[in-house]
Amino acid sequence: MMARYDIAIIGTGPAGLEAAITAKVRNKNIILFGNKDLSRKMQVVDHPILNYLGLPEVTGRQMAAAFTEQLEKMNIEITELKVTAVYAMPGYFGLQLSNNEMAEADSVILATGVVAGKPYPGEEQFLGRGVSYCATCDAPLYKGKTVACIGGSADEEAEADFLGEVCEKVYYLPLYKGDVQFTHDNVEVISGRPVEISGAMKANKLTTDQGSYDVDCVFILRAAQFPGQLVPGVEVDGNAVKVDLQMRTNIPGLFAAGDIAGQPYQYIKSAGQGNVAALSAVSYLDEKKRNG
Amino acid sequence: MMARYDIAIIGTGPAGLEAAITAKVRNKNIILFGNKDLSRKMQVVDHPILNYLGLPEVTGRQMAAAFTEQLEKMNIEITELKVTAVYAMPGYFGLQLSNNEMAEADSVILATGVVAGKPYPGEEQFLGRGVSYCATCDAPLYKGKTVACIGGSADEEAEADFLGEVCEKVYYLPLYKGDVQFTHDNVEVISGRPVEISGAMKANKLTTDQGSYDVDCVFILRAAQFPGQLVPGVEVDGNAVKVDLQMRTNIPGLFAAGDIAGQPYQYIKSAGQGNVAALSAVSYLDEKKRNG
Repeated sequence: MMARYDIAIIGTGPAGLEAAITAKVRNKNIILFGNKDLSRKMQVVDHPILNYLGLPEVTGRQMAAAFTEQLEKMNIEITELKVTAVYAMPGYFGLQLSNNEMAEADSVILATGVVAGKPYPGEEQFLGRGVSYCATCDAPLYKGKTVACIGGSADEEAEADFLGEVCEKVYYLPLYKGDVQFTHDNVEVISGRPVEISGAMKANKLTTDQGSYDVDCVFILRAAQFPGQLVPGVEVDGNAVKVDLQMRTNIPGLFAAGDIAGQPYQYIKSAGQGNVAALSAVSYLDEKKRNG
Repeated sequence: MMARYDIAIIGTGPAGLEAAITAKVRNKNIILFGNKDLSRKMQVVDHPILNYLGLPEVTGRQMAAAFTEQLEKMNIEITELKVTAVYAMPGYFGLQLSNNEMAEADSVILATGVVAGKPYPGEEQFLGRGVSYCATCDAPLYKGKTVACIGGSADEEAEADFLGEVCEKVYYLPLYKGDVQFTHDNVEVISGRPVEISGAMKANKLTTDQGSYDVDCVFILRAAQFPGQLVPGVEVDGNAVKVDLQMRTNIPGLFAAGDIAGQPYQYIKSAGQGNVAALSAVSYLDEKKRNG
């Protein structure tokens, strides 16, 4: 069990970073979950970004470097763990982490970016019953069994390799191009696009457009999760979390900023919303304290 | 009569500047109204601003310098005229300018900042009937008459001096501290706080907490206007314009961003909203074009 934080911020794109620096300036005890190389989306931008006020004509890489320097100056650390679920408990939030620990926070800012597409047919139906978003968390449940693993990017290969260590057999379905290699021989790379996850009480089959596989679990590893699955009970509109102008969601103490809060998908808009979300979280904490 | 613009942007704080660079990147024909020294509020900040993502520990002056450089690189000019009124006409907007000309634009972004306080008693009642916000526009109506002029900052002194040139007598009431000097002897500096503007069909008296003055007009010169007076018909909530998450107001084609769109009053929040307002204006223009 980790310590209890004032604000847990999930995501290290401009929304999460700005939320972190604003919360830090306001002396809050924060934890920032994400990647030390910041958002992958930012890193791969090689053309100049022209419309971020204050940073004329930077590449995504330069922007990320500027942001990293600012975090370091302010002693803000990034915790490189995935948050696989956020549970609204009475008076606080419980965050399920990819290392199988829990973190607690009085308020949470969602800044995980947006997930393209839709859940696969059967994905939501079997979530927790043969569908998992976290290999590290759930692999032990499938020791000696056969599983499938859908990988959204090369970042997910380490988790798939860990499945190979624990499970009898792993079918790995990459959604990206490039060479895929594993240290465990029992991880077999398959091709095709996922079509359906099916089963009875529990999921037992992954169907692709090129074949079907009998499995005990389908691990779906994406860079970000659909918000409704990340936070049970949060109100959504398509793939976006519903927010008001103060970045409040329908759950008190839960805020959202950046791409997850809807279009347009723009760096400076995300940063601005991160700022507002952090200040709203600070107000929420103040009020919570006043009311005991 | 000036040319017809795609987007008129009013204000040169972070919201207006970001709106301008985003609109420029999207190849729109814009006009940006404001001050070349950017917003005064920004200039006077001497402590470091810590929470603008991308610009670590800058003073307001350094921030303004960075923004100015970016504008110059993108060939964005600032038109140093005050916009004294915005009228929603069928299919376009008419902007009344302080040089007594009109500008036309298909869409407008309000980024004028927020006005503290409330209108003075009588101010709204007599607006256009002995209350004016623009000396350059309305001075000729009071040639040879006696007027009062309430100045919100030293910036307004030039306009008051112009009143001295045209009118018989000017009572100048500064709301700020500091030495006030005019080239025209008929401008008399008075002290006190405005209490009420009164009259019958037209305003004929300014009352302060230290005396009262019989006048034919009261000129009220503020850095920004109350939004409902700047744009007749716009829906407001206190001193803020009501907007949705896309920075749309209740008037199609009219958008608002930054402090005028409500709290929190933060640089990066303003910039983020300026970006959203510009993209919403672009969408509005596209749709207008499609529908002929």
